Amino acid sequence: MGDRKYWDERMETIGSEDLKALELEELRKQVKYVYERSPFYKEKFKKAGVSPEDIKSLEDLRRLPYTTKDELRETQEKYGGLGGHQCAETRDIIRIQGTSGTTGRPLFIGLTRNDVNLWNELFARHAWTGGLRPDDILINPANFTLFVGGLTECSGAEHMGITVIPAPFVSTGTEKFMMLITTFKPTVLFSTPSATVFLEDAARKILKMEPSELGFKKGFLAGEALSEEERTRIEKTWNITARNFYGLADVAADIAAECGESPGLHFCAQGALIPELIDPDTLEPMVIEDGAEGEIVFTTINREATPVIRYRVRDMVRVYTKPCPCGRTGFRFHVIGRSDDMIKVKGVNVFPSAVKGVIQSFVPKTTGEFRIVLPHPGPSFGENLTIKVEYSKEVNTEDLEDLATELKTAIKQQLVFTPIIEWVPEGTFERSQYKVEYFEKLYES
Amino acid sequence: MGDRKYWDERMETIGSEDLKALELEELRKQVKYVYERSPFYKEKFKKAGVSPEDIKSLEDLRRLPYTTKDELRETQEKYGGLGGHQCAETRDIIRIQGTSGTTGRPLFIGLTRNDVNLWNELFARHAWTGGLRPDDILINPANFTLFVGGLTECSGAEHMGITVIPAPFVSTGTEKFMMLITTFKPTVLFSTPSATVFLEDAARKILKMEPSELGFKKGFLAGEALSEEERTRIEKTWNITARNFYGLADVAADIAAECGESPGLHFCAQGALIPELIDPDTLEPMVIEDGAEGEIVFTTINREATPVIRYRVRDMVRVYTKPCPCGRTGFRFHVIGRSDDMIKVKGVNVFPSAVKGVIQSFVPKTTGEFRIVLPHPGPSFGENLTIKVEYSKEVNTEDLEDLATELKTAIKQQLVFTPIIEWVPEGTFERSQYKVEYFEKLYES
Repeated sequence: MGDRKYWDERMETIGSEDLKALELEELRKQVKYVYERSPFYKEKFKKAGVSPEDIKSLEDLRRLPYTTKDELRETQEKYGGLGGHQCAETRDIIRIQGTSGTTGRPLFIGLTRNDVNLWNELFARHAWTGGLRPDDILINPANFTLFVGGLTECSGAEHMGITVIPAPFVSTGTEKFMMLITTFKPTVLFSTPSATVFLEDAARKILKMEPSELGFKKGFLAGEALSEEERTRIEKTWNITARNFYGLADVAADIAAECGESPGLHFCAQGALIPELIDPDTLEPMVIEDGAEGEIVFTTINREATPVIRYRVRDMVRVYTKPCPCGRTGFRFHVIGRSDDMIKVKGVNVFPSAVKGVIQSFVPKTTGEFRIVLPHPGPSFGENLTIKVEYSKEVNTEDLEDLATELKTAIKQQLVFTPIIEWVPEGTFERSQYKVEYFEKLYES
Repeated sequence: MGDRKYWDERMETIGSEDLKALELEELRKQVKYVYERSPFYKEKFKKAGVSPEDIKSLEDLRRLPYTTKDELRETQEKYGGLGGHQCAETRDIIRIQGTSGTTGRPLFIGLTRNDVNLWNELFARHAWTGGLRPDDILINPANFTLFVGGLTECSGAEHMGITVIPAPFVSTGTEKFMMLITTFKPTVLFSTPSATVFLEDAARKILKMEPSELGFKKGFLAGEALSEEERTRIEKTWNITARNFYGLADVAADIAAECGESPGLHFCAQGALIPELIDPDTLEPMVIEDGAEGEIVFTTINREATPVIRYRVRDMVRVYTKPCPCGRTGFRFHVIGRSDDMIKVKGVNVFPSAVKGVIQSFVPKTTGEFRIVLPHPGPSFGENLTIKVEYSKEVNTEDLEDLATELKTAIKQQLVFTPIIEWVPEGTFERSQYKVEYFEKLYES
């Protein structure tokens, strides 16, 4: 089993015509299913003047309205429990999961036995793509509770045959977590890219060992995009092959993973999700073709408990469609930012996360803190963009003009637009433990 | 499905001859299996001068040596990982669990896919016996990590078709836990008997509601014996039917449950465990017959990862074998104490937990704290037993003689022996957050 190339060869190497036929058949079933069982979708579809019978081709998917996370939150408040898009009987639902809910009420997700089985398969497909194998040993530091990183990822990994050590940091404690590493020598480091730093410190502090000495072989890095700088650092620090994995609690816990042979995350959820690419401004569909950048939208097919139709997950992606030597036919993508945060400056897409990257590369001359000034509502700006940047105490004010020139050049080179830099002294901006608001909206003050 | 009487009618109503035949066949396989794969058992069996071929009848089980938890801990320290009784390849193990390890190093348990499947079945058998059904909704406040109450109980409940809401208190937090109760209206309260008190307080404090108003229907009370006083209180407080469930991480997470029709927990693990009853002093086998009291010993059959042979779990039980109206043929038992703590006073079995019960019924005249004085190593004592008891500040010393007479009478009535009471003032004994040592061993000081 360890020698086979794919977990599910048929689905991972399916040709586009076969995939389209499968998607159309399942889409028609799913649309009929949600229309009959969900008051939420019935109302939505009626409002949009479309009924299940109108779905005759895959293109007809575009006739259906988009669904947003806010709508799902609202329907859960209105109907209680899983909300008006719950399509299976509660007695047929075996697991409740949810989004983290750090920004407000969590969004709840239900899974029937078939949903669990399908998610288990998706875990195995994407984990196999990312290099995991049944003889691996995975220590899981994720918080259990509703978070899919806990129970659901354990369920998927066990399904694949991986040895799972459930050891949520919060309840296991750092000392015992490290003891489990030395006792069972796990091969898979399951973490967000940023949390690896915490694990590194713990290894050094408690075991007095370098992370690279612990015997890990593979990084299963999910929950955030993995930059190439982070990959290099993590691979060296832990002496592992670091791969990025992608999933979404409200769509499917496991959707895509890097195969290591070509850039981007391979889409692995054929037959479970129909992906679309759209322009987040116009909401017009885009072709999924090499180099395209757009917002990714998912429609579940074969989902029983809480299906989502044309669900805007707000991830902006860059797509790769050139054939991959690994033989998988799923397109690949990088997550380049959140569409909620994207603005257009003279036709160029700008993400605060990208701006942040450049400004932080100027630390310690800057503090890394900044605000993008929006003179009027976005997302499009025809004028130069002003960015307020905190210079640090150790900079002489007479050097600021030169520093601005350097920073503008770097932003131009990396982000293809030239901003106006307005310096502000260290400590000007409020520090937040949660989500930083990178925009200063002049029209709101 | 909701209407059937048993989860697994064949096994739950199996006749004794059929069961014996099944047990013998599986026992012979298991003994051969562990002998061939486990250096720990091979050595043990050789030392005892017995080999797998010697097991020709069920009675021959008695020729095998007992196994203790300390031995398993030692073999895990010696060999690392799961220890010298690991019989399956690590690559075939999909889950690591463990005992809580509050008193020292945790004991680790491995499960192969077949072990998980069997444990899932055992969960369903005992949960069905205890009144749970697939249309139930179970909120799980148990700590995840290695504790079987987390991942393993979720796995079993999902297998049965119950809706599982994983919500470990430690990571979910009290507020969110209560929000989940009002959102999903779980029907099953999964808790230890003692932790229900904490949940009661939380409901009153956070929801400003009485526990009885929350909509729970069934108590799934595990981890500790449930006294009749506790049952009555919990049933009234929560407006539920409270049943006690029994399992052991190192043997099988789910072994027995109360059916509600006869006293005691029905043994539900036919085909997975062979139970024995032994005299904890002489280690001689006892007949499992109505009214018998002894230490229960389990031998796994059909166990792949970490089998245990004649494993002394140290639970002293009282057995019931009269036919039960529910039709289940498994014998029933109550856990009456830990054999480690049992002593014999003039031929009468005495458990500190029972002594504690009587002394605590005299609070606030006593503080509830006490020590049993052992003049020489036990477990048998031919002389009167001295118990040092803390009287509380509010008692006049001149009343102590009368109080001692009352206490002696109560102990005589409830525990069938008459102690010597030696009063000590409040605060004499060290308070412990962990396990209290109720014995004062004169021969050790």
